[in-house]
Amino acid sequence: MRTYDPRWRWANNISPTQLIILFYLAAVLISTCLLALPIAHQKNTDLSFIDVLFTAVSAISVTGLSSVPIHEYFNTTGIILIAFTMQLGGIGVMTLGTFVWLLFGKKIGFKERRLIMADQNQGSFKGAVSLMRQILIVILTIELIGFLVLGTYYLQYFPTAKEAYFQGLFASISATTNGGFDITGQSLILFQDDYFVQFVHMLLIVLGAIGFPVLIEVKHFIFASNEERNFIRFTLFTKLTTVTFLVLIVMGAIVIALLDSGHFFANKSWHEILFYSLFQSVTTRSGGLSTMDVGQLTEQNELFMSALMFIGASPSSAGGGIRTTTFALVVIALYHFARGNKQINIFRREIHAEDLFKAVNVTIFGILIVFTSAVILASIEPFSLTEVLFEVCSAFGTVGLSLGITSELTDVSKVILMLLMFLGRVGILTFLYSLHRKSSGANYHYPKERIIIG
Amino acid sequence: MRTYDPRWRWANNISPTQLIILFYLAAVLISTCLLALPIAHQKNTDLSFIDVLFTAVSAISVTGLSSVPIHEYFNTTGIILIAFTMQLGGIGVMTLGTFVWLLFGKKIGFKERRLIMADQNQGSFKGAVSLMRQILIVILTIELIGFLVLGTYYLQYFPTAKEAYFQGLFASISATTNGGFDITGQSLILFQDDYFVQFVHMLLIVLGAIGFPVLIEVKHFIFASNEERNFIRFTLFTKLTTVTFLVLIVMGAIVIALLDSGHFFANKSWHEILFYSLFQSVTTRSGGLSTMDVGQLTEQNELFMSALMFIGASPSSAGGGIRTTTFALVVIALYHFARGNKQINIFRREIHAEDLFKAVNVTIFGILIVFTSAVILASIEPFSLTEVLFEVCSAFGTVGLSLGITSELTDVSKVILMLLMFLGRVGILTFLYSLHRKSSGANYHYPKERIIIG
Ligand SMILES: [K+]
Ligand SMILES: [K+]
Repeated sequence: MRTYDPRWRWANNISPTQLIILFYLAAVLISTCLLALPIAHQKNTDLSFIDVLFTAVSAISVTGLSSVPIHEYFNTTGIILIAFTMQLGGIGVMTLGTFVWLLFGKKIGFKERRLIMADQNQGSFKGAVSLMRQILIVILTIELIGFLVLGTYYLQYFPTAKEAYFQGLFASISATTNGGFDITGQSLILFQDDYFVQFVHMLLIVLGAIGFPVLIEVKHFIFASNEERNFIRFTLFTKLTTVTFLVLIVMGAIVIALLDSGHFFANKSWHEILFYSLFQSVTTRSGGLSTMDVGQLTEQNELFMSALMFIGASPSSAGGGIRTTTFALVVIALYHFARGNKQINIFRREIHAEDLFKAVNVTIFGILIVFTSAVILASIEPFSLTEVLFEVCSAFGTVGLSLGITSELTDVSKVILMLLMFLGRVGILTFLYSLHRKSSGANYHYPKERIIIG
Repeated sequence: MRTYDPRWRWANNISPTQLIILFYLAAVLISTCLLALPIAHQKNTDLSFIDVLFTAVSAISVTGLSSVPIHEYFNTTGIILIAFTMQLGGIGVMTLGTFVWLLFGKKIGFKERRLIMADQNQGSFKGAVSLMRQILIVILTIELIGFLVLGTYYLQYFPTAKEAYFQGLFASISATTNGGFDITGQSLILFQDDYFVQFVHMLLIVLGAIGFPVLIEVKHFIFASNEERNFIRFTLFTKLTTVTFLVLIVMGAIVIALLDSGHFFANKSWHEILFYSLFQSVTTRSGGLSTMDVGQLTEQNELFMSALMFIGASPSSAGGGIRTTTFALVVIALYHFARGNKQINIFRREIHAEDLFKAVNVTIFGILIVFTSAVILASIEPFSLTEVLFEVCSAFGTVGLSLGITSELTDVSKVILMLLMFLGRVGILTFLYSLHRKSSGANYHYPKERIIIG
């Protein structure tokens, strides 16, 4: 028998997934208030409420789409606030919340641990708290290294050391959290010939988008002794997500290169083609930074990139979309369904039918949401279906790539993009679970009857 | 022990679904040869092979898309051949094959019964032969009534009785088989103010697209005595498919009317809006005839109608697409998945998880196929994504509505549309089953491991 305090009844009735959504909403609210402060704005500019809200949602969801040019409307204070918001969103409101708890030395109770578990989708309560601490250490270490490398390298690009390191810090946070915001006004186009800068950015984006569990497992492996390594077994999740992630990047780059071989890449050298297509493929995972104006690509390439953005990043990462694992499971489900297999094995493990069912449902929900949003945008905006589909997929995948139309959209469309960014970051599964009533099982059974599928 | 004739070994290794595909291919081949005969063509015309093939595939799959204006290129003989081909495709190669067997008095063996069962997706062998006979009787009766009513009514439209009844016969076959071909060159636009003609056509289209099992069950009910009726129980399939079919038509008409309320319907009377939107909604189930130039509708309406066409008709009907039952099961799956229900009941029956899994897989396959085709067409044709998506969905749903671009497509695009029509008619599930090896179950089990979905 546990003691029961009636004042906390409402909190006990809230599910972990509902709490996560409440936390994200609170984070958006706070960021909006902060970014609305006049001290964050450039002089003589007038930001509308919807644009401040859009920037806050975009930063918390680490998307990076912006309805106004950031550097024209926000001053250094504003940019620091945006970086802080990205950090908050990228590492996750829950992780940061846990960190605060740890700092203040409080013992983390069952409720909070359940919360963390649901956000990072971990299958067991055990070690959730230590996991959170590890996440923070890993991410901050990556960001620190990125900041030092980029800041130092930027000394040749910027007039003062202060500016170089400020740009380096923002770039490192923006890449690692997959925030995708740029304060130069032209993303990484400035560095389109500097392969070192591009390589560092790609590395940071991948580390932020490949999923925290993968980072933690790899960290364990690296720091383990030779003897221990023989006993370390990577989880099925880590194997599946890493393979899918890398296959998407490599295949993505190849297809992007092929689809524009007669157009944008027609007169480019092999190393230009390699870096342009590779960077654009990596960035569709959820990065959002870009080394070119993607509007210069062919329509089929923009549609292909829309599909890549729809897939998004790995679960428990800074990215959005339906997630790489969902995509992998759908591909596996379709392949085995087409072959008529009853039982599905990968990496010598059998997959739960329930997981496959989840994956295909999430995918269909995603398609319905994205397609409906695109049809609404296409009908109220003067842009083509391809253009709005690109922007919609970019928002849902919390990628932030843009054909440059977001700033010209009406307020209704901006609200739709905000909802997509929020949903993409929270994840369809978490969002749906937040709608569940606590008890949903029926105790009676009707007779089963088959249906012709057609 | 049964006797075994080695000469028929290959036939025993062919699965029923593979045989169905072979029969359809044979039907396309024969129709192509017939339609290529110069006696079927108008004088001084020159039909290319690809256009003859396109017409044959379109007729066998009862789609009705045409790459050339039928009445300009085919004479009366050609039109009769097309009507015959539609009849063949609409009633189904299998049904007709069975009928020939019955006519010749041969006892239908196990193999052939299995064949019929697979084509009509019936769950038991029992009564399959008698079912086929009933199908033919029902369809021919409907066509005969349609022919007599339309032919007689057309006396006021056409100069001679012969022409009126010829037009009535073609119209009845085209509507009942959901063939959708028109020999007037402008579909039913000629009858856009004649609500009687439209009503008869809608009725015939619905009867052809609602699925043979429904017709048979309703026929049983109608011809049963009052006492017997108390014991007749409609199957879950009939209930689900009929409700879905009617909901799609009514909701479809309402949305079509709303999406163009400020545009095409702006200055129309209530009865014009009613009949225009209702007819266009009915025709997207798979009919393909139309009372207006659908290109006059808004872009969002064309996209909405594309989605309706993608869904298509009921299984075991003359239509295509992913089928109404698949759509219904996906909606049910999504609804229950979103609510977190473990067990899914409709009409006091529990649905098999396997059927739901089939439905979502078929849907994702459909989306992938349609989207990929649209991207290819958009990249090689000078038309917008919306335009090619409409044409692609029309082909996949074997609907035959067109924004008028099919005749201007390149040969590659025509081949893609042909493949879509074929796949839409055969059905994704039958097509996938035809790829199966006979034995596909593994005898060993790997340990199961959970995956984070995201
Ligand atoms: K991003
Ligand atoms: K049709």
